[in-house]
Amino acid sequence: MPSAITSSGSPDYYTVGVDFGTLSGRAVVVRVRDGKEIGAAVHVYPHGVIDEALPGGGPQLPPDWALQHPEDWREVLRVAIPTALAEAGVDPACVIGIGTDFTACTVLPAAADGTPLCELPGWAGRPHAWPKLWKHHAAQPQADRINALAHARGEKWISRYGGKISAEWQYAKALQVLEEDSEAYDACRRWIEAADWIVWQLTGRESRNACTAGYKGIYQDGAYPTADYLGALHPRFADFPATRLEHPLSPLGSRVGGLCAQAADWTGLPEGIAVAAGNVDAHVTAPAAGAVDNGRLLAIMGTSTCHILNGDTLAEVPGICGVVDGGIVEGAYGYEAGQSAVGDIFAWWLAQGVPEHYRTEAESSGEDLHVLLSRKAADQQVGAHGLVALDWLGGNRSTLVDHHLSGVIVGLTLDTRPEDIYRALLEATAYGTRTITEAFEDGDVPVTEFIVAGGLKKNPLLMQIYADVLRRPVSLAASEQGPALGSAIHAAIAAGAHRDVREAAAAMGRVHRHAYLPDPRRADAYDALYAEYRALHDHFGQGPDLLLHRLRRIRNTARTATTA
Amino acid sequence: MPSAITSSGSPDYYTVGVDFGTLSGRAVVVRVRDGKEIGAAVHVYPHGVIDEALPGGGPQLPPDWALQHPEDWREVLRVAIPTALAEAGVDPACVIGIGTDFTACTVLPAAADGTPLCELPGWAGRPHAWPKLWKHHAAQPQADRINALAHARGEKWISRYGGKISAEWQYAKALQVLEEDSEAYDACRRWIEAADWIVWQLTGRESRNACTAGYKGIYQDGAYPTADYLGALHPRFADFPATRLEHPLSPLGSRVGGLCAQAADWTGLPEGIAVAAGNVDAHVTAPAAGAVDNGRLLAIMGTSTCHILNGDTLAEVPGICGVVDGGIVEGAYGYEAGQSAVGDIFAWWLAQGVPEHYRTEAESSGEDLHVLLSRKAADQQVGAHGLVALDWLGGNRSTLVDHHLSGVIVGLTLDTRPEDIYRALLEATAYGTRTITEAFEDGDVPVTEFIVAGGLKKNPLLMQIYADVLRRPVSLAASEQGPALGSAIHAAIAAGAHRDVREAAAAMGRVHRHAYLPDPRRADAYDALYAEYRALHDHFGQGPDLLLHRLRRIRNTARTATTA
Repeated sequence: MPSAITSSGSPDYYTVGVDFGTLSGRAVVVRVRDGKEIGAAVHVYPHGVIDEALPGGGPQLPPDWALQHPEDWREVLRVAIPTALAEAGVDPACVIGIGTDFTACTVLPAAADGTPLCELPGWAGRPHAWPKLWKHHAAQPQADRINALAHARGEKWISRYGGKISAEWQYAKALQVLEEDSEAYDACRRWIEAADWIVWQLTGRESRNACTAGYKGIYQDGAYPTADYLGALHPRFADFPATRLEHPLSPLGSRVGGLCAQAADWTGLPEGIAVAAGNVDAHVTAPAAGAVDNGRLLAIMGTSTCHILNGDTLAEVPGICGVVDGGIVEGAYGYEAGQSAVGDIFAWWLAQGVPEHYRTEAESSGEDLHVLLSRKAADQQVGAHGLVALDWLGGNRSTLVDHHLSGVIVGLTLDTRPEDIYRALLEATAYGTRTITEAFEDGDVPVTEFIVAGGLKKNPLLMQIYADVLRRPVSLAASEQGPALGSAIHAAIAAGAHRDVREAAAAMGRVHRHAYLPDPRRADAYDALYAEYRALHDHFGQGPDLLLHRLRRIRNTARTATTA
Repeated sequence: MPSAITSSGSPDYYTVGVDFGTLSGRAVVVRVRDGKEIGAAVHVYPHGVIDEALPGGGPQLPPDWALQHPEDWREVLRVAIPTALAEAGVDPACVIGIGTDFTACTVLPAAADGTPLCELPGWAGRPHAWPKLWKHHAAQPQADRINALAHARGEKWISRYGGKISAEWQYAKALQVLEEDSEAYDACRRWIEAADWIVWQLTGRESRNACTAGYKGIYQDGAYPTADYLGALHPRFADFPATRLEHPLSPLGSRVGGLCAQAADWTGLPEGIAVAAGNVDAHVTAPAAGAVDNGRLLAIMGTSTCHILNGDTLAEVPGICGVVDGGIVEGAYGYEAGQSAVGDIFAWWLAQGVPEHYRTEAESSGEDLHVLLSRKAADQQVGAHGLVALDWLGGNRSTLVDHHLSGVIVGLTLDTRPEDIYRALLEATAYGTRTITEAFEDGDVPVTEFIVAGGLKKNPLLMQIYADVLRRPVSLAASEQGPALGSAIHAAIAAGAHRDVREAAAAMGRVHRHAYLPDPRRADAYDALYAEYRALHDHFGQGPDLLLHRLRRIRNTARTATTA
């Protein structure tokens, strides 16, 4: 029986939310009645993003590959949850549920019992046996064929995905396995999102959540793509859903099972407590950030940005990632869009492009280098750096859905400074977001508010730029742990502590409405620059024969050539 | 009487060549009979390039301005020449002449006696009273009007300049003075190239050399542009040549006078020795680098690149800087083209874009940072970095003749490294050079050899890239001081020690023929990348309404706006 007693005399209950990110996992212990975060812990993945060689060594992975290690994810359960509980000082007996969220589409081949293929004897040295991280971008040729065939055959579902299935998603990645390592494909009995795989670890049983099945698994109107269509891509791909995906779907916030004995042992949580259905880091954040109502666009801004938005009606918006009935909240059409790289771009510039004396200055003023560059970049009129950039250093997820695009910087002069390029990159991501919000509105999905969650909300210059570029107020999720809090909220629903997501969001979520307001003069200046961004966007991003694609092909050929 | 005696018993004579560059002046003492460089000294200009505020302080200069201080140039005479003489250990009595060369078009307003306007009482605080350095690019609007009017009126001379007069040259800069500070224009009695001004300091008398008058002063077929044409630009500009330029021209290599007493006192050289006509740093280098014969294209590669080439016939090549009868060597048509920024671009990247650990690595391996980056960049297949850049960070001198263009980098990804961008920038300048050589050949001016002089010839990666991109052998001028040696050669001609430039060049110049050979496989790979460069070149550089121009206007408006 829980021992914690509130001031009113009734006991306080808690849930645990665990957010599996790109480089680390974080656990947070949350009070069910008001969403207060009592304790938190982060565990950095020892193997991080595997894009050079496999953990056991071996040759350089090809360009655009990105893998992860499942053991890193289990370690988060074993390390971050007990640490967060200890920090919270909460009696584990008062924890009534656990929810998780994951990057997506991060997906792996597994045995029938859920064991990752890479952990089966003899498979550790086979790249295609490993989990493919969301930003594995090497399946673009497969995605191109998936899209061309879907349009040629008039597959109804393609318009639910903005007209393009991403190279990041389940089918492109699975088809790449089939075509490049058919033995690995044969050995794969379950092709499963990491979001569902981690729930398997927690409950001991397979489940599939409605969110990833819809957004990443092309599950629409109760069915996966047909065997006819898939067989036309590759004869052996015809039975892919039937043999490797098919499983009843769990709605978001539902209880898929009780915590199994092994997971209770790993985490220090009570066996049998509610485990919520798997979820995606972005989507799970909506109730934590006051973004459940239709029209509130939530941008989860970190290494990449994911945009989620609920709408009343089913609309087909070109270039968005997808629309799924109940994909974010039961009873609404959930829309998703995204930008493949955002914080990653800023981090790239800091790592590759800022000279020593900036670091020295940051050290002497005790500032983070991002803070220093932002401060220097803030001190200029809009447009004074003379630059416009395309934010495609990680490809373009929306609205071009093309991961073989790349970044462009235009307007460089001999007096261009590191803070100028930094600011141009911040702005480029804001232009990318504006392109997405305009696509939604042009597609008759209203956007009434722009809310930011994720680490980048802490950069005031970036937030002000977004307000000015979008000509909208920017609201901020109050929590520093949006996804983890969102997972804890879903756990509270799964545990029956709140009736539904709206009630749970009202009790446990929080947002600072209109934290940044657009300045009309700066917004006017940005209108002119956004027009130039769009001109570059169309020139470099559209057309039958793209220079950026040719460059990518030249690059990949050169990189894989042996030195003569 | 000279005291130095050669082994054959006859006395050895010497000349002094002085090269006035962008950041420093260098003097070299050269043996007349064989061109051996006996001593040399560099003096860095204390004021360097003045592009922030005037030496006396005051407000920030507008964008694209670049001035210099005449006293810095006099200091080179007073410091570098005596130092070089001392290093040479040569009896000054054995020095029989002095020659000079200068950046161009570096030009200044002066009083009738040659005193720079900025040195007259009351003028030091007026920006337009100061010498405008070649890379002062703020007169582009004037250049645009000069060109439009010349074409509208069908002025015959415009085709001698590739169809475009540069914003860097005499008329655009003078018209800017007239239109922005008419009092300074009124006070200007002589509008004179620094190349001629320095000779005025040495001889005490005004002269005008055939090279700058032709290339930068629109002197063609014995006349400057007509008063009619100039008056249509601005009524008060009609008499500009008659009142501020007109003076008999001195052929290159001619003696314009004897060293005056004051200059003899400054330099320690004998009064009365021959002073050669002024010259331009690039053009003066031809005899030093084995590039006197028709068809040998000499690229003087430093902060910028100047290409000079002699031809048999008068051809009108679109986009080149100019063709002047006897502009390089008497008896040939001298062609000039150029790239506004080359070494400047590489230096920009080192200063603004290379993180600390590269510097640490360079220090620990005892390498120059250029050497380190070149070594890292060399270790990849052609195209492996996936980048193409436009080398317009300082505008485009040839063949677009547009200083309001700017640089572009295309193909950036999150794994783009500093050495990748460095290599892409090296390659971009090679593509720019290929564009120029193709323009000459398309214009029926044959290019039979590619010779490099200037500091950048010391970068083996860069030279190999040029050989591969151009599909031509690259020859190297042997001297490290091409322009200064060329000035000394011209001094030897002025002093009568050699009959003409061909004889002097044969005796005193030296070249390593075919130091780098193209590799056919790499050249093929570069053909594909050059095609992409040309696609970018045409997209960003041609057309009635250029994105890069709009960005420049937005930038300049923003920079001059006061913060609200």
